Amino acid sequence: MSEPAAAPAARERPAALILAGGSGTRFWPLSRRSRPKQLLALEAERTLLQATFDRLRPLVDPGSIWISTTRELVRDVRRQLPQVAASQVVVEPEARNTAPAIGWALHSMPAALREGPVAVLPADHRVGDPDAFRAVLAAAFAAASARDLVITLGVVPRWPETGYGYLRLGPALPGSGLRRVSRFVEKPDAAKARRFVRSGSYLWNAGIFVFRGSSLLRLLKRLQPEMAAGLAALAAAPERVGELYPLLPSISIDHAVMERLRSLATLPLDCGWSDLGSWAALAEVRPKDDQGNAVRGDVVAVDAVDNLLYAERGTIAVVGVSGLVVVRTADSVLVVPMERAQDVRRVIAELEARGRYELV
Amino acid sequence: MSEPAAAPAARERPAALILAGGSGTRFWPLSRRSRPKQLLALEAERTLLQATFDRLRPLVDPGSIWISTTRELVRDVRRQLPQVAASQVVVEPEARNTAPAIGWALHSMPAALREGPVAVLPADHRVGDPDAFRAVLAAAFAAASARDLVITLGVVPRWPETGYGYLRLGPALPGSGLRRVSRFVEKPDAAKARRFVRSGSYLWNAGIFVFRGSSLLRLLKRLQPEMAAGLAALAAAPERVGELYPLLPSISIDHAVMERLRSLATLPLDCGWSDLGSWAALAEVRPKDDQGNAVRGDVVAVDAVDNLLYAERGTIAVVGVSGLVVVRTADSVLVVPMERAQDVRRVIAELEARGRYELV
Repeated sequence: MSEPAAAPAARERPAALILAGGSGTRFWPLSRRSRPKQLLALEAERTLLQATFDRLRPLVDPGSIWISTTRELVRDVRRQLPQVAASQVVVEPEARNTAPAIGWALHSMPAALREGPVAVLPADHRVGDPDAFRAVLAAAFAAASARDLVITLGVVPRWPETGYGYLRLGPALPGSGLRRVSRFVEKPDAAKARRFVRSGSYLWNAGIFVFRGSSLLRLLKRLQPEMAAGLAALAAAPERVGELYPLLPSISIDHAVMERLRSLATLPLDCGWSDLGSWAALAEVRPKDDQGNAVRGDVVAVDAVDNLLYAERGTIAVVGVSGLVVVRTADSVLVVPMERAQDVRRVIAELEARGRYELV
Repeated sequence: MSEPAAAPAARERPAALILAGGSGTRFWPLSRRSRPKQLLALEAERTLLQATFDRLRPLVDPGSIWISTTRELVRDVRRQLPQVAASQVVVEPEARNTAPAIGWALHSMPAALREGPVAVLPADHRVGDPDAFRAVLAAAFAAASARDLVITLGVVPRWPETGYGYLRLGPALPGSGLRRVSRFVEKPDAAKARRFVRSGSYLWNAGIFVFRGSSLLRLLKRLQPEMAAGLAALAAAPERVGELYPLLPSISIDHAVMERLRSLATLPLDCGWSDLGSWAALAEVRPKDDQGNAVRGDVVAVDAVDNLLYAERGTIAVVGVSGLVVVRTADSVLVVPMERAQDVRRVIAELEARGRYELV
């Protein structure tokens, strides 16, 4: 980017945009279409959305934290974050993926705010070490502010995960700790993932970005002129959002912008990050009892090892089982081996086929 | 026995005594101390107690069906069997095993009734073929009546079960289909059980007996004089049952009488009998879907084979599991491999150790 020299980082008020419009059911039966992962307190008392907000707070004022969500979720989002003004909760009338959501939220910010550095981050990730996270985020704010860079926080991989995309590291940007991203790599197979992790030249793509908001809008104009025009029309007539927003092309910020930038930079993040993509991913990051069970709620485990036993309501009793996910809610129970946790989607499909929408 | 020649069977009104005082928790979380197996509708709409009553009805008048139960269960017993007069429901003030329960119930019957043949049978067994059961029971009533025999209905073994006691067959009683029982055998090991079943000379001890009530009381007097004296005192002052009943020796009818009779006879029973000793036993007798799952209630099974999936309340969803028992009730869920179904008692023990009596 070749902008006029930016003001020093210390002068600029950083902002954050939390993307809270996701609609997954990978934590069924706890998650439902109307209660996706970000609205759940999977680990503690605070939901993932609240934890994302809490994590930002030491760096970002509540008045500068914006949230993008959907019509279905906005009530719960506002209830969970009463500290965030209603004007800062941007509602997508219809899901059009992350690029329009980010573009529309940036347009909704006061010009002064989007002129400064903005962090965009999903509402449904886990960070084990918030201090480490903030140290990297602060550096990213500073770099975005001082050098007008678009920066992605790439996670230092801890195992050869085949469920994540990877960022291939390019040359270092002298004197900054930043590296260029030379390539986005889609979810690799196991052999490739092992090679990536061994090489030390790859990071997990966590979908966390930092940029000047105004710069991102300029990039959208250059790379996605149709979307940028649609967003401009929307900004000129925000009361027509219900009609205009659904006309925006549905595309992710990765595909729309990030993968097409030769100048994309990254800062490596090592903070106990997980996207919590499944019950098995939750089991991985939870503390274990001396039998290797990750337990929540009222649980009796006899001769049982290496299970995730999650009682949101009522009691779970297991005897002689291993490597299972058992989740009990007020209306349902799920039992699935850890390695098939992703197949909960087949339960959803079956429930939908039976017309059991009240359970999905 | 050498009584005066008995009246012909057709003249005598048969009676039945259903033993409904058991207190197991082997079907936890469905069964509780206050709701043992006999009070549960494990398979159909009728509870095991009700099914036992229904099964007798074509042979025995409701006015001749007596029930022995405990203080804790009497309310539910009477609610489940409103056709049975209150005077026919005999309450043990304290559990003293089956011999005192039977003795006390026989004393409570009108003399004319206990003079005739009485079937004693547990309230918590399953019979797959009630017609076959009744054919054998009718023959036993006739033989008990005509020949004043004590008869046990022994079940033709269908597999080398190690969880049951066995009856070794003795010589045939000419012209009757009856055999003597030469020996009671406690639960055998697997090798012995296989030998028993192969030999064709053993039956399962199902705890079902038929005798003239007056004859059984005479046998008690001979073999258990202390108990018989206690029962006589009780019969003379039934208002003191709360004080006198607990003084009776606690002993089973098998040990007190049956195992000590050289004249015990048996009729083989082949009627889809099961004592339903565990969730696995229930799985054995239930119809299966095309994946081998025995299912009750609202269940979604994906890639799951040979499980028992029992949803009393709410929904059970399983993916990729086999050979599991999964039971969901309003407050709990149990997950245990079929072959460890007996170990549900360890869950009970753990719940008791934690003081969670509301769940036991």
